[in-house]
Amino acid sequence: MVMNHFSGDNLTDPNWRTAEIIFTGNELLKGNVLNTNSQWMAKTLTSIGIEVKRMVVIEDDIETIAEALRESLRRKPDFIFTSGGLGPTYDDVTLEGVAKALGRQLEINSAAEKMVQDRYKLAEKAGLLKVKDSEKHMTKMASLPSGASPLANPVGAAPGVLIEQGKTTLISLPGVPAELKAIFNYSIIPWIKPLLGSAFHAERTVLVTGVAESRLAPVIVDTMSKIPGTWMKSCVLGSGKSEICISTTASSESEANRRVDEGYKIIVEKAKELGGIVNAINEESK
Amino acid sequence: MVMNHFSGDNLTDPNWRTAEIIFTGNELLKGNVLNTNSQWMAKTLTSIGIEVKRMVVIEDDIETIAEALRESLRRKPDFIFTSGGLGPTYDDVTLEGVAKALGRQLEINSAAEKMVQDRYKLAEKAGLLKVKDSEKHMTKMASLPSGASPLANPVGAAPGVLIEQGKTTLISLPGVPAELKAIFNYSIIPWIKPLLGSAFHAERTVLVTGVAESRLAPVIVDTMSKIPGTWMKSCVLGSGKSEICISTTASSESEANRRVDEGYKIIVEKAKELGGIVNAINEESK
Repeated sequence: MVMNHFSGDNLTDPNWRTAEIIFTGNELLKGNVLNTNSQWMAKTLTSIGIEVKRMVVIEDDIETIAEALRESLRRKPDFIFTSGGLGPTYDDVTLEGVAKALGRQLEINSAAEKMVQDRYKLAEKAGLLKVKDSEKHMTKMASLPSGASPLANPVGAAPGVLIEQGKTTLISLPGVPAELKAIFNYSIIPWIKPLLGSAFHAERTVLVTGVAESRLAPVIVDTMSKIPGTWMKSCVLGSGKSEICISTTASSESEANRRVDEGYKIIVEKAKELGGIVNAINEESK
Repeated sequence: MVMNHFSGDNLTDPNWRTAEIIFTGNELLKGNVLNTNSQWMAKTLTSIGIEVKRMVVIEDDIETIAEALRESLRRKPDFIFTSGGLGPTYDDVTLEGVAKALGRQLEINSAAEKMVQDRYKLAEKAGLLKVKDSEKHMTKMASLPSGASPLANPVGAAPGVLIEQGKTTLISLPGVPAELKAIFNYSIIPWIKPLLGSAFHAERTVLVTGVAESRLAPVIVDTMSKIPGTWMKSCVLGSGKSEICISTTASSESEANRRVDEGYKIIVEKAKELGGIVNAINEESK
């Protein structure tokens, strides 16, 4: 019943990496905030050839964070990302949870201290705070687990944090979407891209109207088996209206495009044979 | 550093229940789809007095689903919800995962079978499929773990599924947002409300401009300690712009409102003392 969605050459390509993401925040668990970071990170990691295996949302609680990290480390993903809890407030406890999980101490990191001081001086100039009254918060944000490297945050005070732990790289990012994205684009992508080697992602979407999803199901299974390394999924949009996503990650752009184009062609043809009306939307290849 | 966000009368009120939510779907892990179900469920459960402790997104894989359920059951929440994987397609394997985790067999449930047949007859009338060609899919959706009860789905074919396992109630819902919401509102709320007794949720939000979040932090901690059972959280919206959420769940509506109103008043006053400009947004009390 279950198929291996990364069969074919993916399994033998050492460039295909895995990631888990831990989001902290009571505001997410209470529904005050929509977790847009999750889609952004999933899409971004997928697009550079990293397979996201699991995402979890937990409370801002040191032991809960430490336990989630220990669980995740046991599964040995290549990357663990955390999002949230790096700021100055009482419930920003992610790095304490990280330190506890890894058995490391929090200590002032001089590079992080410089980054935080620079941001606080800017905030003082803008009349938002006084640097001399902010020692405690600055010290908190500059205190990283021992052995960690800070990642520059171009739009906020709290640096990101990178730690190598065994075969896993642990990266902690702020939860504020603009800060998370800025650190990712500015500090992580340039560092991670060369490590990943060549991984090209491509996707296309087919919208089918007038056929029940259940009738498309065997067509999708059959087409996936014909194009190894390709993942297909139908999502119901309404009665008799489904969207079929076709996506793949390959070691060359032309191979990635070839697979989704072939899948697209077969799905369109078969959907028409079943009496469906086909509209291509979101034609995207990256 | 960590505060107990449900101190005060919450800890002694037997009506305060906990929940975990498991979302399945490779489309979520690849970022093809924004998980709006997570916010809707978190908000809805919070509003009826259920505390969401953890949400996880995993692959459509039987063993991964079973393992996530076993982990969750070990933490003994009152409710575990799953979202996704109840439909007719190859990757709809949630009930297989549930059955595996609970050591139960999948078997045709006659009430579920009737629900599925009724929906397929409607779909046949709409020209979307032929009932006689759909036996396999209908049987799949009507096959529930032994001892389960189906929950009517007013807008789709796959029924929801309710299973009592020890002190935990496990509820499986489809991932299609309209179906998830319909089953929740139609089948779950009327059943769950009397079980929960009286639990009233209230929340208010304060927008503060012109003060750094770090200067508001001690005010928030101090105010929370003054109003037991109340949770407060600041979220950075931009440089010198923060939103402070105040929320509580109490055993009477008047007590819930009293708490958030008192918290609101103190925060507004203190933010003004710090030189902040205060705008109340999203004034909501439910």
